[in-house]
Amino acid sequence: MQANLNQKYSHTSGFETETGFRFPVLELDYSTWGKLNKEKTNVVVIYHALTGHSNASEWFSGLFEKDGIFKNQDLFVICINVPGSCYGSTGPSSVNPETGEAYGHSFPILSIRDVVKAQQLVLDYLKIEEIQLVIGGSMGGMQALECAITDKRVQAAAVIAAGSRHEAWAIGISEAQRMAIYADARWSEDFYDFNNPPLDGLAAARAMAMLTYRAAEQYNDRFGREIRTQDQFQVSSYLKYQGEKIGLRFDPLSYVRLTQSMDTHDVGRGRGGRGEVLSALRIPVLVAGIQSDLLYPIFEQQTLAEMLPNAIYREITSPYGHDAFLIEFRQLNDLLKEFTSIINHHKVVK
Amino acid sequence: MQANLNQKYSHTSGFETETGFRFPVLELDYSTWGKLNKEKTNVVVIYHALTGHSNASEWFSGLFEKDGIFKNQDLFVICINVPGSCYGSTGPSSVNPETGEAYGHSFPILSIRDVVKAQQLVLDYLKIEEIQLVIGGSMGGMQALECAITDKRVQAAAVIAAGSRHEAWAIGISEAQRMAIYADARWSEDFYDFNNPPLDGLAAARAMAMLTYRAAEQYNDRFGREIRTQDQFQVSSYLKYQGEKIGLRFDPLSYVRLTQSMDTHDVGRGRGGRGEVLSALRIPVLVAGIQSDLLYPIFEQQTLAEMLPNAIYREITSPYGHDAFLIEFRQLNDLLKEFTSIINHHKVVK
Repeated sequence: MQANLNQKYSHTSGFETETGFRFPVLELDYSTWGKLNKEKTNVVVIYHALTGHSNASEWFSGLFEKDGIFKNQDLFVICINVPGSCYGSTGPSSVNPETGEAYGHSFPILSIRDVVKAQQLVLDYLKIEEIQLVIGGSMGGMQALECAITDKRVQAAAVIAAGSRHEAWAIGISEAQRMAIYADARWSEDFYDFNNPPLDGLAAARAMAMLTYRAAEQYNDRFGREIRTQDQFQVSSYLKYQGEKIGLRFDPLSYVRLTQSMDTHDVGRGRGGRGEVLSALRIPVLVAGIQSDLLYPIFEQQTLAEMLPNAIYREITSPYGHDAFLIEFRQLNDLLKEFTSIINHHKVVK
Repeated sequence: MQANLNQKYSHTSGFETETGFRFPVLELDYSTWGKLNKEKTNVVVIYHALTGHSNASEWFSGLFEKDGIFKNQDLFVICINVPGSCYGSTGPSSVNPETGEAYGHSFPILSIRDVVKAQQLVLDYLKIEEIQLVIGGSMGGMQALECAITDKRVQAAAVIAAGSRHEAWAIGISEAQRMAIYADARWSEDFYDFNNPPLDGLAAARAMAMLTYRAAEQYNDRFGREIRTQDQFQVSSYLKYQGEKIGLRFDPLSYVRLTQSMDTHDVGRGRGGRGEVLSALRIPVLVAGIQSDLLYPIFEQQTLAEMLPNAIYREITSPYGHDAFLIEFRQLNDLLKEFTSIINHHKVVK
């Protein structure tokens, strides 16, 4: 598929968030693969996770390559960078045209609804008529579900390792990570210095996150009690390295804001409850849980599937915990092929 | 039982750690309950966990009160504050008599073996002849196991929610917490100011620890998505409160050193491997795992029990995760009564 990476759409007529913050301009970075058909109906939208970006063929490579479900398909695949991030869409480090300075702390908490609405601006700009599939894992799964609920163009959704709302457990994990960032010498409530951001706090937050993305057995099997350097266990060295690495590519304030975005996720909020909202969603939804997922335990996915009238629920077997949605591509492709075949069969019989 | 809290033993003939650090004086804070018999054989030693202290009747109350196994028994129960802590035994905040200043950063990492050896000084000072039972949960369980291996006076051991070694998973969780403390503005590698310690980092570390001490369902059921104050979920508020609370009673440098102590735990290190060490431990050992324990998953306890020639393995059923060893006193008492009765029966038949 022909890739067209990091395109920009500048929405200049303003964008207002749920809480009433008004962006004069919203920049959206997006990548596409394949060619949009004349009817503008051969569309798949991929949503990325917390520290991801619009180049989905990089982190979702298994869906594009070899036996990937997108390979050799007449599809137009699109992935849009989440606003609030630091990969091209408007985020805390973007310049506010009204002040001439970076948004910094004034950048609002975008809800998952805001994030999805902002991304829909690109879909509208491209005059998309029909979306065959929305798909995402983790924070991407939250967006896929939210889009399926609010966008009538969506024909089917695949929600992986995400539930109908961010539960206290996951909010707590977010909060503990933010507390580590706030504890950093370079964090201040008044001013944010993008040239000297709180990278030690971000490193600690990332180390915590890396633990919740995997599972105990996997850590034990991989690292054991091996010493790497003096007084330093291999696992400590690994976590410190991961902590430093995230600082090279991700801004701590974006990390704070996007974890806060995830915390807002609750499809039922202000809409009469999730039961009502989900029972009204008639399109087919693949809900996939990961058996070893510590961050979003499978009971959340099971609950989501039970509340949907037209869901199939499947489990990914993996030692990799939450991260499995970025690793177990063979299973993921198999699930998506099965899902597509069920949808197609359904279309024929009806 | 007559309590005699916070007694002091000052060991003035020096104490050398595994790594060769020499304390000129080691102060040990200990509490006792009941009366030591003439033969000095009616002894139970309780070991406390990470942020605990020698007043075991406070945090292990269920073993002392009502149907507790210690209630109305002719026992001499003793609990000794771990050196490295900040509850009376020598720790980083203690004054080094050789310099006249607090140890601070110069306070060494004590291994679990050092910790147990230091506490044995009190048992020797009291001229204990026989120890009926050593018992502890979490870090206390590591000490109980280590003492059972190295002290011939020990007749039986109860190891709760702890394994034969600190695995990579738990070391990683320790490391992420320490990274949060190191990120704090007030942490420096050169100097430690006990009047202005890195409490924000400690708060973040504690928040993360509090998550690993419980389980997802328990957090979700308790907090849900309730908002406590504006923009603040109940669970966030709870974790911040717990983070602040620990700072009122625990020193961050002690927290760093004691988590490092736990990381050293490996009964087989330098002794020919844990298989060899554990197979040589002939006394009866109760190994109790907690089904919902996230920090020390039950497979670690199962492995420990399998490697011991004379262990009984039992599971505590609880929604409270790792913390269950400080909560599920009815089950704990039942397990200990069963264990005692098995030991006694064994004594009669042999």
